[in-house]
Amino acid sequence: MIDIKWSSAEKKIARRAFDAALKNECEALVIKLKVLATKAENSDDVWAIHDYLAEQRRTIDEKYDYRYSQLIVVFGRLLREKWIEDKDIDGLSAEKIHAIRHIALL
Amino acid sequence: MIDIKWSSAEKKIARRAFDAALKNECEALVIKLKVLATKAENSDDVWAIHDYLAEQRRTIDEKYDYRYSQLIVVFGRLLREKWIEDKDIDGLSAEKIHAIRHIALL
Repeated sequence: MIDIKWSSAEKKIARRAFDAALKNECEALVIKLKVLATKAENSDDVWAIHDYLAEQRRTIDEKYDYRYSQLIVVFGRLLREKWIEDKDIDGLSAEKIHAIRHIALL
Repeated sequence: MIDIKWSSAEKKIARRAFDAALKNECEALVIKLKVLATKAENSDDVWAIHDYLAEQRRTIDEKYDYRYSQLIVVFGRLLREKWIEDKDIDGLSAEKIHAIRHIALL
């Protein structure tokens, strides 16, 4: 992974962006579950919801990895998926922002 | 298991009771899911619903075992859990009904 140092100010920005993205994604998931449950008519629908939640749980567990060695890649993905915006990573070094934006475009 | 023969008429009764119980239990599950989803506020609630559905899926898969060698035990459990009533097994032999009721009381 990218071995770069995080200053104290950058760590604060990263923590805020990370937590906000996770909160937003979980809020979206709650809303999605409510929509799916409202439409559910039979056991096939229930098991499809179960499968969907299992997949979301795995994805979210894997995606939100708050290790500094992983954060550039994590933020790249979050930016690509629009769980964070450019303004959320304002204040990080130019090198980090460049790397995050590069990964977001992959 | 109990090794007893099922007549053609009994098989029809068994199939009807089994299918109706499964349908009822799945309908109850759909309703329960809707209630839980309506109350869900955050990701902890979503994961709790995921865990609940996983448990229900395992339980239902395991419970609804339509092998004649298993049906007495299956119906005993369904009677105990009130997914079938006495009238649903009317027409089975006295021996079977006795065994089913006995298991229901365990």
